Amino acid sequence: MERIAIFPGSFDPITCGHEDIINRAVPLFDKIIVSIGRNEDKKNYFTIDQRLGFLKTVFAGNIKIEIDTYEGLTVDYCRKVGANYILRGLRTSADFEFERSIGQVNKKLYPEIETIFLLTHPEYTSLNSSVVRDILRHGGNVSQFIPEGLSLGLGF
Amino acid sequence: MERIAIFPGSFDPITCGHEDIINRAVPLFDKIIVSIGRNEDKKNYFTIDQRLGFLKTVFAGNIKIEIDTYEGLTVDYCRKVGANYILRGLRTSADFEFERSIGQVNKKLYPEIETIFLLTHPEYTSLNSSVVRDILRHGGNVSQFIPEGLSLGLGF
Amino acid sequence: MERIAIFPGSFDPITCGHEDIINRAVPLFDKIIVSIGRNEDKKNYFTIDQRLGFLKTVFAGNIKIEIDTYEGLTVDYCRKVGANYILRGLRTSADFEFERSIGQVNKKLYPEIETIFLLTHPEYTSLNSSVVRDILRHGGNVSQFIPEGLSLGLGF
Amino acid sequence: MERIAIFPGSFDPITCGHEDIINRAVPLFDKIIVSIGRNEDKKNYFTIDQRLGFLKTVFAGNIKIEIDTYEGLTVDYCRKVGANYILRGLRTSADFEFERSIGQVNKKLYPEIETIFLLTHPEYTSLNSSVVRDILRHGGNVSQFIPEGLSLGLGF
Amino acid sequence: MERIAIFPGSFDPITCGHEDIINRAVPLFDKIIVSIGRNEDKKNYFTIDQRLGFLKTVFAGNIKIEIDTYEGLTVDYCRKVGANYILRGLRTSADFEFERSIGQVNKKLYPEIETIFLLTHPEYTSLNSSVVRDILRHGGNVSQFIPEGLSLGLGF
Amino acid sequence: MERIAIFPGSFDPITCGHEDIINRAVPLFDKIIVSIGRNEDKKNYFTIDQRLGFLKTVFAGNIKIEIDTYEGLTVDYCRKVGANYILRGLRTSADFEFERSIGQVNKKLYPEIETIFLLTHPEYTSLNSSVVRDILRHGGNVSQFIPEGLSLGLGF
Repeated sequence: MERIAIFPGSFDPITCGHEDIINRAVPLFDKIIVSIGRNEDKKNYFTIDQRLGFLKTVFAGNIKIEIDTYEGLTVDYCRKVGANYILRGLRTSADFEFERSIGQVNKKLYPEIETIFLLTHPEYTSLNSSVVRDILRHGGNVSQFIPEGLSLGLGF
Repeated sequence: MERIAIFPGSFDPITCGHEDIINRAVPLFDKIIVSIGRNEDKKNYFTIDQRLGFLKTVFAGNIKIEIDTYEGLTVDYCRKVGANYILRGLRTSADFEFERSIGQVNKKLYPEIETIFLLTHPEYTSLNSSVVRDILRHGGNVSQFIPEGLSLGLGF
Repeated sequence: MERIAIFPGSFDPITCGHEDIINRAVPLFDKIIVSIGRNEDKKNYFTIDQRLGFLKTVFAGNIKIEIDTYEGLTVDYCRKVGANYILRGLRTSADFEFERSIGQVNKKLYPEIETIFLLTHPEYTSLNSSVVRDILRHGGNVSQFIPEGLSLGLGF
Repeated sequence: MERIAIFPGSFDPITCGHEDIINRAVPLFDKIIVSIGRNEDKKNYFTIDQRLGFLKTVFAGNIKIEIDTYEGLTVDYCRKVGANYILRGLRTSADFEFERSIGQVNKKLYPEIETIFLLTHPEYTSLNSSVVRDILRHGGNVSQFIPEGLSLGLGF
Repeated sequence: MERIAIFPGSFDPITCGHEDIINRAVPLFDKIIVSIGRNEDKKNYFTIDQRLGFLKTVFAGNIKIEIDTYEGLTVDYCRKVGANYILRGLRTSADFEFERSIGQVNKKLYPEIETIFLLTHPEYTSLNSSVVRDILRHGGNVSQFIPEGLSLGLGF
Repeated sequence: MERIAIFPGSFDPITCGHEDIINRAVPLFDKIIVSIGRNEDKKNYFTIDQRLGFLKTVFAGNIKIEIDTYEGLTVDYCRKVGANYILRGLRTSADFEFERSIGQVNKKLYPEIETIFLLTHPEYTSLNSSVVRDILRHGGNVSQFIPEGLSLGLGF
């Protein structure tokens, strides 16, 4: 049986932390689908097309990684694309308690799914998309927080 | 002196976790008032009348449990109804830190009040009303997360 | 049915924190048994007789409080003395995770038991018996950490 | 080299907790700039002028404390005013994880900055501006939570 | 490249929690080596031979699972047996902080290793070998905490 | 008034994490006394003379840093040497809860003392002396975990 994982998120924008977890997980799976959860209620900093573009740029050339978007429950999307694993990174104990809750509910909704966690690299523990957006809003330089070579189209 | 507790909350909607804590606390108190805090600023998923209806259905027949609503500070409501205890469930350490803060402030505002905590059943650790609403929004089935026999009037 | 709680511990020695939780819980129960768990493997600072003496001194005159000792599993002791509640104080989130584990295991061993938690007074959050022993070992003054009027027989 | 710290915040309104940390840190620094971060996106309870007024009242007469406001990234403001330290209080482990993330990102953006933490007094562990605003909204009395002698202009 | 994981531990004794994590991880790996870390300094409840016997009984018939013991650093053992993954279960946030520390140090000592975490089933959150030993010491019944059908040779 | 801090610890052995905190705190204080708490009850890996030697080597040439040892309560030592600050690093939320307890007790025993915390560098979050000792015991290489150029006299 193929080992297919999804890595769900908003990726608004993708950070070095996301990139690191996904690249380190590649050998473990036959395919990783990095998929943007569309959420109409949430105001995003970057449009869905911009975020898709960032992901495609960062993972171009990696044949085991696919880029996608989805709506609705994550477990329903897993069923649809045949994924049996959800991949997540863990940074802090607050992170852990949040992810544990989501992971346990997902397993109740879809018992075949398994959430697999990797540890975030220590250097990226303090990093998330919200921090990057906050710096962007104030005109700061985020180049050390986003994947190398990625241009957010904002002059960086 | 009578042991009267309130169990305050939004109950939007009531979950198995709420139901379990309240039922297990019944022998400890002479009366438990399950009371919905009305908060004009907060947008709710279910109306106050729907939520009241759910509570009345779930606890029908239990003569030690009353259903009510209140506005304003919880401690002022306790004074008004003669409650000397606030009942709460604890699921996670994030929960605990949140509840400790509220409990300590309540005690400063009303030194006679005592907050009493029970442990949430392990099976319900990941469960809260927000999880239930999120699944409802995406058309998922929440029957395993809400009290047995309760219909949310949404086809479940 | 009578509401009987045990408050188990080593009480080596009793601190202001223990005293505060027990006194605040008195109105909630018909009887509270403050009971020292005898543990041969653990080296204690005060003898069992000294610790019993401290407890008897502190709670003398309170007819709802009994002092006792026990060996073996706490839940077996609860069954023996007819207690349906275990009373505990919560200070920190580390405390909470420790107590949750014990509480859940106790409930699996004896489903009729309910662990009831009260919040430690903020002033006593940093206090425990180990802190008191550590200060005693170094010749410090612990009078502000132990019940008023209690003499540990050490010149304080 | 002068030791200049900023204590950034919303101060909506200042609490006893803020006041206590700042006063205890005065001997450590040559100057402390208590500075309100202006954030257009955030709806505040008190206007910027009211909040400035509260700060000036509370710290009047302390020649080592300056009151100011700023916009943009905190580290850019530190550079501008020549501050090499950011002063913060720590109350809970949730606090700590939040502050650690901000402190680590600030150090990546401005390696010369050092965040210095003091422990909040136990009595103020549960206290923050949001608690005070919540009590105010419900017509409660906040006098025990704000600096002595401060009038919020609301009848307290 | 083969995906080989080790699941290191004392297994003194194996619990339902260990068994559950290992069985759920089987589809993810080509081989899982469940290996007892020999530690001369630590006093164990069961002998190494007893613990090996328990593991062999529980995983008999699963051709993807091997049972072994090792001495020295876990990463040195991984190198020796060609394992590129360390498998661990996560129960609580205290667990997480402990495992994160070990996982980060292991990665510094052996950058090719990846620690993979699964969530413990909610029912087993409070369970660990130390709890089982404690119940055994007091003559309690541990059958609900250890793998079904396992006899600890103690009358259970 | 002079700003004198002590940095107390076992330093068994000193790690990169200790060195980093102390060096970053030097500009904040007029003097930092790095002092080894002698504890007869605790079995150490390195002798007190070896540990003193390591500290002297690492901080040689820094005229603001003194090396010392002490017995008894830390606050009594502070009084003796005229220190008004205790310096500590914070790595994790478990760390924080432990340090908060010690800091609050110290302040109750000696109200003039202030504990000052700095954030550990992310790279050293998982590092402590116990990790270093564990690697040494198993014959591993600890050079990346201890101050550059320090020889532990063990062939590294």
